[in-house]
Amino acid sequence: MKKVAIIMGSDSDFPVVSEAIKQLHSFEIPFEARVMSAHRTPVDAEQFAKNAKDNGFGVIIAAAGKAAHLGGVIAAYTTLPVIGLPMVSSTMDGLDSLLSMVQMPSGIPVATVAIGGAQNAAILAAQILAIDDEQLSNKLSQFKIDMENKVREADKGIAEKIKEMMG
Amino acid sequence: MKKVAIIMGSDSDFPVVSEAIKQLHSFEIPFEARVMSAHRTPVDAEQFAKNAKDNGFGVIIAAAGKAAHLGGVIAAYTTLPVIGLPMVSSTMDGLDSLLSMVQMPSGIPVATVAIGGAQNAAILAAQILAIDDEQLSNKLSQFKIDMENKVREADKGIAEKIKEMMG
Amino acid sequence: MKKVAIIMGSDSDFPVVSEAIKQLHSFEIPFEARVMSAHRTPVDAEQFAKNAKDNGFGVIIAAAGKAAHLGGVIAAYTTLPVIGLPMVSSTMDGLDSLLSMVQMPSGIPVATVAIGGAQNAAILAAQILAIDDEQLSNKLSQFKIDMENKVREADKGIAEKIKEMMG
Amino acid sequence: MKKVAIIMGSDSDFPVVSEAIKQLHSFEIPFEARVMSAHRTPVDAEQFAKNAKDNGFGVIIAAAGKAAHLGGVIAAYTTLPVIGLPMVSSTMDGLDSLLSMVQMPSGIPVATVAIGGAQNAAILAAQILAIDDEQLSNKLSQFKIDMENKVREADKGIAEKIKEMMG
Amino acid sequence: MKKVAIIMGSDSDFPVVSEAIKQLHSFEIPFEARVMSAHRTPVDAEQFAKNAKDNGFGVIIAAAGKAAHLGGVIAAYTTLPVIGLPMVSSTMDGLDSLLSMVQMPSGIPVATVAIGGAQNAAILAAQILAIDDEQLSNKLSQFKIDMENKVREADKGIAEKIKEMMG
Amino acid sequence: MKKVAIIMGSDSDFPVVSEAIKQLHSFEIPFEARVMSAHRTPVDAEQFAKNAKDNGFGVIIAAAGKAAHLGGVIAAYTTLPVIGLPMVSSTMDGLDSLLSMVQMPSGIPVATVAIGGAQNAAILAAQILAIDDEQLSNKLSQFKIDMENKVREADKGIAEKIKEMMG
Amino acid sequence: MKKVAIIMGSDSDFPVVSEAIKQLHSFEIPFEARVMSAHRTPVDAEQFAKNAKDNGFGVIIAAAGKAAHLGGVIAAYTTLPVIGLPMVSSTMDGLDSLLSMVQMPSGIPVATVAIGGAQNAAILAAQILAIDDEQLSNKLSQFKIDMENKVREADKGIAEKIKEMMG
Amino acid sequence: MKKVAIIMGSDSDFPVVSEAIKQLHSFEIPFEARVMSAHRTPVDAEQFAKNAKDNGFGVIIAAAGKAAHLGGVIAAYTTLPVIGLPMVSSTMDGLDSLLSMVQMPSGIPVATVAIGGAQNAAILAAQILAIDDEQLSNKLSQFKIDMENKVREADKGIAEKIKEMMG
Repeated sequence: MKKVAIIMGSDSDFPVVSEAIKQLHSFEIPFEARVMSAHRTPVDAEQFAKNAKDNGFGVIIAAAGKAAHLGGVIAAYTTLPVIGLPMVSSTMDGLDSLLSMVQMPSGIPVATVAIGGAQNAAILAAQILAIDDEQLSNKLSQFKIDMENKVREADKGIAEKIKEMMG
Repeated sequence: MKKVAIIMGSDSDFPVVSEAIKQLHSFEIPFEARVMSAHRTPVDAEQFAKNAKDNGFGVIIAAAGKAAHLGGVIAAYTTLPVIGLPMVSSTMDGLDSLLSMVQMPSGIPVATVAIGGAQNAAILAAQILAIDDEQLSNKLSQFKIDMENKVREADKGIAEKIKEMMG
Repeated sequence: MKKVAIIMGSDSDFPVVSEAIKQLHSFEIPFEARVMSAHRTPVDAEQFAKNAKDNGFGVIIAAAGKAAHLGGVIAAYTTLPVIGLPMVSSTMDGLDSLLSMVQMPSGIPVATVAIGGAQNAAILAAQILAIDDEQLSNKLSQFKIDMENKVREADKGIAEKIKEMMG
Repeated sequence: MKKVAIIMGSDSDFPVVSEAIKQLHSFEIPFEARVMSAHRTPVDAEQFAKNAKDNGFGVIIAAAGKAAHLGGVIAAYTTLPVIGLPMVSSTMDGLDSLLSMVQMPSGIPVATVAIGGAQNAAILAAQILAIDDEQLSNKLSQFKIDMENKVREADKGIAEKIKEMMG
Repeated sequence: MKKVAIIMGSDSDFPVVSEAIKQLHSFEIPFEARVMSAHRTPVDAEQFAKNAKDNGFGVIIAAAGKAAHLGGVIAAYTTLPVIGLPMVSSTMDGLDSLLSMVQMPSGIPVATVAIGGAQNAAILAAQILAIDDEQLSNKLSQFKIDMENKVREADKGIAEKIKEMMG
Repeated sequence: MKKVAIIMGSDSDFPVVSEAIKQLHSFEIPFEARVMSAHRTPVDAEQFAKNAKDNGFGVIIAAAGKAAHLGGVIAAYTTLPVIGLPMVSSTMDGLDSLLSMVQMPSGIPVATVAIGGAQNAAILAAQILAIDDEQLSNKLSQFKIDMENKVREADKGIAEKIKEMMG
Repeated sequence: MKKVAIIMGSDSDFPVVSEAIKQLHSFEIPFEARVMSAHRTPVDAEQFAKNAKDNGFGVIIAAAGKAAHLGGVIAAYTTLPVIGLPMVSSTMDGLDSLLSMVQMPSGIPVATVAIGGAQNAAILAAQILAIDDEQLSNKLSQFKIDMENKVREADKGIAEKIKEMMG
Repeated sequence: MKKVAIIMGSDSDFPVVSEAIKQLHSFEIPFEARVMSAHRTPVDAEQFAKNAKDNGFGVIIAAAGKAAHLGGVIAAYTTLPVIGLPMVSSTMDGLDSLLSMVQMPSGIPVATVAIGGAQNAAILAAQILAIDDEQLSNKLSQFKIDMENKVREADKGIAEKIKEMMG
């Protein structure tokens, strides 16, 4: 299977990004996690992006905050799909990173997920890789069923919660 | 090759969505374009999403405006990657559709591109399908070179523009 | 009397939603509270909405956060009035859920109340049911008088507060 | 049947509000349209609201722009459900009127629809009145079917549009 | 001297509003503080506003949060200048109350100060009353000098702070 | 009577500011209109503000756009009440000028009216001057009555408009 | 004198950027204007930035819209000051480009000017180069005087405009 | 070497501004830190700005919050480059200070950095002074290398973090 790269702009992003790692791990998707900055180590980011395809990657997740250029910088150097994960790392609730990622100019898309939506970045990567991988596709279907069941569990529990509240 | 589905919430979205169609066409990617509404024909959207994989689709592009639920509704019923294309169809410059698409809850990602970014939606779909398709991958590389050349053309022309301006 | 349905997208919404439940309870309006997700249990939401009228419901309150599609998904499958209660469940202060609920396209309204305004969702439901129910209407009038009295109590207390402050 | 009141803050709102009127008319719901301002004719608005129930109204639609207090002012004087229709009448794309309407304090809800969503205000009013009116409920069901058919018509037409475009 | 009225929409606003009271007190301006709600005690607010001039008031400060109609409701019933003090009482950082106060339609101004700017509301009231009151005008001049001196004190202290920091 | 000063940051503001001038003129309030810039002629603005009281002014209206410092700069040099009139002169719909005016720090208020609300700036100035001027106060009361009558006229005309529309 | 580089992300930015060129020209500052894209010609941008200092540039102006990474990408490869000029090239009024430019992470500043503020970008570049260039500094002083005079001219003309208006 | 002035609007800004001071100190750039307010000590700010060039300053950093006029007021009186550092000192996350600084009108630029971006303000000042100072320029190059190394260190550490997490 093609690998997923998870690039974060700073290791302070790790606590959020780790949710993506856990999700990929639970899908048994091979991945590599890296810290690379669009502004502090631009050459590393460029080299990584240029060689990502040849190095066996199929999808790249880029997590960054503030003026979050990481996704765009990587997308500039590869034709692999790049998933943008906007991080909250300023006072602006992540609106700055969201707009810096999603509003890419024509020709260079970044597939942006919710602010801080690390788990969704991983699921999207899995969905992409699953197009031609029936086994992974089945895991995604199972994941959907598991979510469904959790909601139904919660649904069953709500009557109890109300009883407690009403005392 | 897997097909791309392009679902628009209303046929008034066609003038923008047509840019995605042209781009897919130029990449020779098979596609089907449909008008289906999350709110007006929810059953059709559900049926389409449920059967999309079996019907040979690999990626679904969902274009919608205002409280743009189309991407989320489709993503609820499939494990295929869903690309969200937020449209401007209210007074809010597309901010409402952007947030309604990108801020999906954990478990159900929508890969969101720029407001009105129809061409990018198509390129992202192509990038996804190209992971295991060397020919399409080469087309994307060529597309990147073409963009590069256009910018360099423009760069060469700028001196002339300045001369004209300076008279 | 017709029942009120209170659907929440996740049981993490319960602490806020419980304010609506208490209010309905105090008006002696029959209600059912459910956890159903537009994206994780869409079929349950659809089934619930389709049968809500026949099952004796008069109004449906839908509480959800982020890209809050729950109200819209339910409204797509019923002609009962749907009250949207936008929740804060992202970094965006609830602006994402507000716009995802209130900016519904023509044809499918969602009656949106304030972000986190659970009590108001319940009062609005009561007002709707009271149109043809004089007893409930009287309770609402009494509720208004009680609020009035509380403000007047506070008004009387303010002079004391100032004295304390001035020492 | 109870009547619907449509109050607009200024007759400059008429072109938008007329969409609500047409929709109520097509549902054969009796209505009265009035121009009353929360700030310029507050006593008229108060009198209207106080007597609305006795005068046979079941629902009140309040359309206003900028610091749109009309809905709140009317809701202060009645226990009837009040539907807020935020209008664009400043440079702020209607965000000011949306927040002025939807963010009502606890105790006094205003059921807010989309910015400029006049048709939805009327449909919501109809849904409210239809709770105990099977005939109106059937009209709403038919309206849903008509919308569905229009979308399906558009869906059928899209292939033709693509052909034209592709020339 | 004309009195200043300070109306707050809820006594939960008192901790912030008390800054205005202290400032008026320090200027020896007579004032009355009241709790009155545009939505919960609209008749009280109306009565107060209608009689404010005859009751010896010269300026009215209205403090309210969320869909902050209090300033506008009072301004509707008086020709006295009304100062709007937007409070933070929702998740929206006070943007909702700011827009609900400042974006008043033509004919009915509300003189809006900063979100939570209680001290400034009092100073503005003092400036208004000082137009024809030389003694109060002198107090305002002295207040300006005191502020100036405090800044200059801070300026002198900064070198010390830097030394400490540099160790 | 004290005069009103109307300072605009640029003569491109004149078309909007002229509404304030007309309103003051109709109230027979003496005024002087000036073009002075906080950034381009700061010394002129400073001199004007410092001497405004001695030169017979009672209130100063400051109209400016973008990073609208004019109100604050003038308020820094006078204890007269300063009315801020935020202008739309960038792409940001006046949000930049609104925040630059209204969010003044403690000690230096600017009484801000709606974006582009020139008429309201004039009415607010009149309300301030009317505190001790019964004749002007009566004009303001009459103005309120005139507005009321205009709304009632519009109210009477609406039935006609509907008839036309319905054909 | 060191040269100023003016990099625009697309030649569609030229009409706005030309204001910067005219201003530099009028200050007789040597400049080079280029079209280079952070995403389409990233290598060209990188090469340009790396060699800018050696090629005699002192300041770089980067003009770009949407997810405007150009300034950051250039700043990543040079220690020269980079001036960011956010362009309006989406539906978002330039807010996306502003945040993408100004919210740079620690270590890599971009000196951002107003949205579309091309003339200011040039003046800022001139101010930077004038620190050690008395002649250019004098030109800037003269420019300030010229602006001052233009405002004073406008100030003198305003009385005339009012007379015309009053007819 | 020319000195850098760091002006803060209030000494409550010191904790953030101190990051700029530390950075200038580490570059061995001479600086003076001052507390001066655009609104409370406008004359001091004016005098400082007018004489800054003659007093040996090359760049001025202005840090201020809310309606942050400090940068603009200083820029009005000098032709030195002024760096604006928007501070968070209201409920608005610094958006008010950002817009009040960056949206300067034509003719008077303020080089704005990120909200709270004190370190970047200092680095930008250093970049400006380094144009004609090879030694400082080398320090900036070294600073870039140090940042690069820190990111690479973090990159090396990430595998360890994942191991820990995975347990």
